[in-house]
Amino acid sequence: MKVSVTRKARFCAGHKYWRPDWTPVKNREVFGACANENGHGHNYTLEVTVTGEVDPTTGMVINLSDLDRLIHEHVLDRIDHRNLNVDVPELAGKIPTTEVLAGFIWDTLAPRLPVGRLEEIRVYEADDLWSSRRG
Amino acid sequence: MKVSVTRKARFCAGHKYWRPDWTPVKNREVFGACANENGHGHNYTLEVTVTGEVDPTTGMVINLSDLDRLIHEHVLDRIDHRNLNVDVPELAGKIPTTEVLAGFIWDTLAPRLPVGRLEEIRVYEADDLWSSRRG
Amino acid sequence: MKVSVTRKARFCAGHKYWRPDWTPVKNREVFGACANENGHGHNYTLEVTVTGEVDPTTGMVINLSDLDRLIHEHVLDRIDHRNLNVDVPELAGKIPTTEVLAGFIWDTLAPRLPVGRLEEIRVYEADDLWSSRRG
Amino acid sequence: MKVSVTRKARFCAGHKYWRPDWTPVKNREVFGACANENGHGHNYTLEVTVTGEVDPTTGMVINLSDLDRLIHEHVLDRIDHRNLNVDVPELAGKIPTTEVLAGFIWDTLAPRLPVGRLEEIRVYEADDLWSSRRG
Amino acid sequence: MKVSVTRKARFCAGHKYWRPDWTPVKNREVFGACANENGHGHNYTLEVTVTGEVDPTTGMVINLSDLDRLIHEHVLDRIDHRNLNVDVPELAGKIPTTEVLAGFIWDTLAPRLPVGRLEEIRVYEADDLWSSRRG
Amino acid sequence: MKVSVTRKARFCAGHKYWRPDWTPVKNREVFGACANENGHGHNYTLEVTVTGEVDPTTGMVINLSDLDRLIHEHVLDRIDHRNLNVDVPELAGKIPTTEVLAGFIWDTLAPRLPVGRLEEIRVYEADDLWSSRRG
Repeated sequence: MKVSVTRKARFCAGHKYWRPDWTPVKNREVFGACANENGHGHNYTLEVTVTGEVDPTTGMVINLSDLDRLIHEHVLDRIDHRNLNVDVPELAGKIPTTEVLAGFIWDTLAPRLPVGRLEEIRVYEADDLWSSRRG
Repeated sequence: MKVSVTRKARFCAGHKYWRPDWTPVKNREVFGACANENGHGHNYTLEVTVTGEVDPTTGMVINLSDLDRLIHEHVLDRIDHRNLNVDVPELAGKIPTTEVLAGFIWDTLAPRLPVGRLEEIRVYEADDLWSSRRG
Repeated sequence: MKVSVTRKARFCAGHKYWRPDWTPVKNREVFGACANENGHGHNYTLEVTVTGEVDPTTGMVINLSDLDRLIHEHVLDRIDHRNLNVDVPELAGKIPTTEVLAGFIWDTLAPRLPVGRLEEIRVYEADDLWSSRRG
Repeated sequence: MKVSVTRKARFCAGHKYWRPDWTPVKNREVFGACANENGHGHNYTLEVTVTGEVDPTTGMVINLSDLDRLIHEHVLDRIDHRNLNVDVPELAGKIPTTEVLAGFIWDTLAPRLPVGRLEEIRVYEADDLWSSRRG
Repeated sequence: MKVSVTRKARFCAGHKYWRPDWTPVKNREVFGACANENGHGHNYTLEVTVTGEVDPTTGMVINLSDLDRLIHEHVLDRIDHRNLNVDVPELAGKIPTTEVLAGFIWDTLAPRLPVGRLEEIRVYEADDLWSSRRG
Repeated sequence: MKVSVTRKARFCAGHKYWRPDWTPVKNREVFGACANENGHGHNYTLEVTVTGEVDPTTGMVINLSDLDRLIHEHVLDRIDHRNLNVDVPELAGKIPTTEVLAGFIWDTLAPRLPVGRLEEIRVYEADDLWSSRRG
């Protein structure tokens, strides 16, 4: 028997896909409108899934107030209402796709869980596009 | 090749998180507003996923009218518009979290499937919080 | 030209429909499962719509931080994670339908708006049922 | 009898709330995180409502392919995947709130409708915040 | 003070846009893919809004069990899982757009309300397209 | 570490469940309202999940413009605004359930992916019913 609990959170951020080592033509060809000069942005959705034993005293895999605090302090406070290309050192020089964001958030949260283990990080950039990283 | 079909159902219920063997201070500390004296409630969403062979005659893993009947008779008729702390004997004395509800519904439905096997039970308490039990 | 801005907020609460001056049979007949003895609950959605002039300096009808503070202090802090039949004096003795809740929230917020005028209060008890009060 | 038809469209864009004639402290005080230095962004939703007679031959208030073309050519092609502070001349020097966007889109579409009249423009910046302009 | 209550219901149906008095070329030009030979279909959403006095005894504008019965008997039982071009006499020879459906449902429900008055019928053919009829 | 990206797409189609080798009574008994004579239809949602390495140059498992082109050319262009019983040779003689559609789309897309591997195809016929095929 495997039980997991998932918390969904939201943030908004700006970004732009651009490789300075590529020509403008190639940037446009590969990244399309995401390469537009002055950037754009999204409402993102983050889903954090933790798997573990259900504590018989509390009925919980992890106390949500603990999980919420981790998500806010280590993720949302750093990326919400931010420019992902400029404001987040770990993403500097990377293309901030949902794949890359999911990896960054995984690396940030996985070692900090007080109980259980991180099972999945999902990052939605829109309701029709998301990435998932699983352990 | 693995094929599964999922049916989503909705119910609403009241509940409260409270351990009588704990002090009020500790109940509040661990359960927060969920420990409020007179209880509260939610619109829950249940997802039942069944995996199996696709019957070439019907194109179905399980006939939905059979699955719907099971879900209504054994789950919804017992918890919809109910108080989870009081009205469901199997939950008596337990903290009715989504983790615990998913376990209860799994134990209720798994042995009753006429075909296929239960793959996952998901219980959403809100659109930003849910638990999953997998076999 | 008329411009309005709407803020959506969420709360959860427990409730029960029951008139002590009616027989149990009549309560059940009129209120159905909402009359179940031990109550149930919902995830509610509240939409507050304010109409007014767009301030050319800020581009806003009302500053959202002001509106959010009003909604939290005077509405959510009083009804979120509460039992509507017991915990809210203004609702005592009333049937806490979405119609009644919309009226209560209207009466609470309308006189407190620092700018603009309240245009509509919508209260959703589920995604398929809501009430609206307009001024 | 009044009949209207509404088309919903989506776009994403970056923006920042900042008045150069205000101190950084005042910008932060009034605009909060929306004043963050490097901007952020959103997935926006636009709803365009047209009211008119139902053509008995087509059953339509307005042909959707006509309405879609107007929305794409005159609105989406100019703001989707753009920075609202920089890329849209009509918004230059304005705070790009949903109120202001609704006004801009109204002024753009109202005179161009081939049939019917524009009844409402709604702009959602998130699922919990939107503005509406009505004629 | 105006109070209304809205009930949302769902149905699915098939349809096709085709005028036999037009050439195939003109049908395709005006109706696009909706003119495809063998028809297609949608999941529709219906919203029925009733305005009236709030009964102080029940807290309701209209008892939902009464409203649900009307919607099911007179609307859903006639159009759910049906072909709108063939199975509904009132729609025969008409193009079954959301505008036309809203009119049909208005005409069906308005004279049958036991209390209150019909304020709005909305019919969604998809999440990005709907029509509204108001009295 | 496993990373996947999911693209959601929408289409609408008509269908009917009917086996000519069964009596009308048996068709109705097994398929219910889905056996109605003149067919009906749905708004379908398709989710295509691709798993693979994240290209460090682009931050992507697969370029979305490539994935979108595959989905449109090989799936949507063939089934959107179509009658699934009549217009799609691969489905001829089959009951077009979501299970069967998921299999058809899997078989269509799996061999065509330019990079990564197909992990899951999900087909939703409604928001409360979907099937998933996994490799």
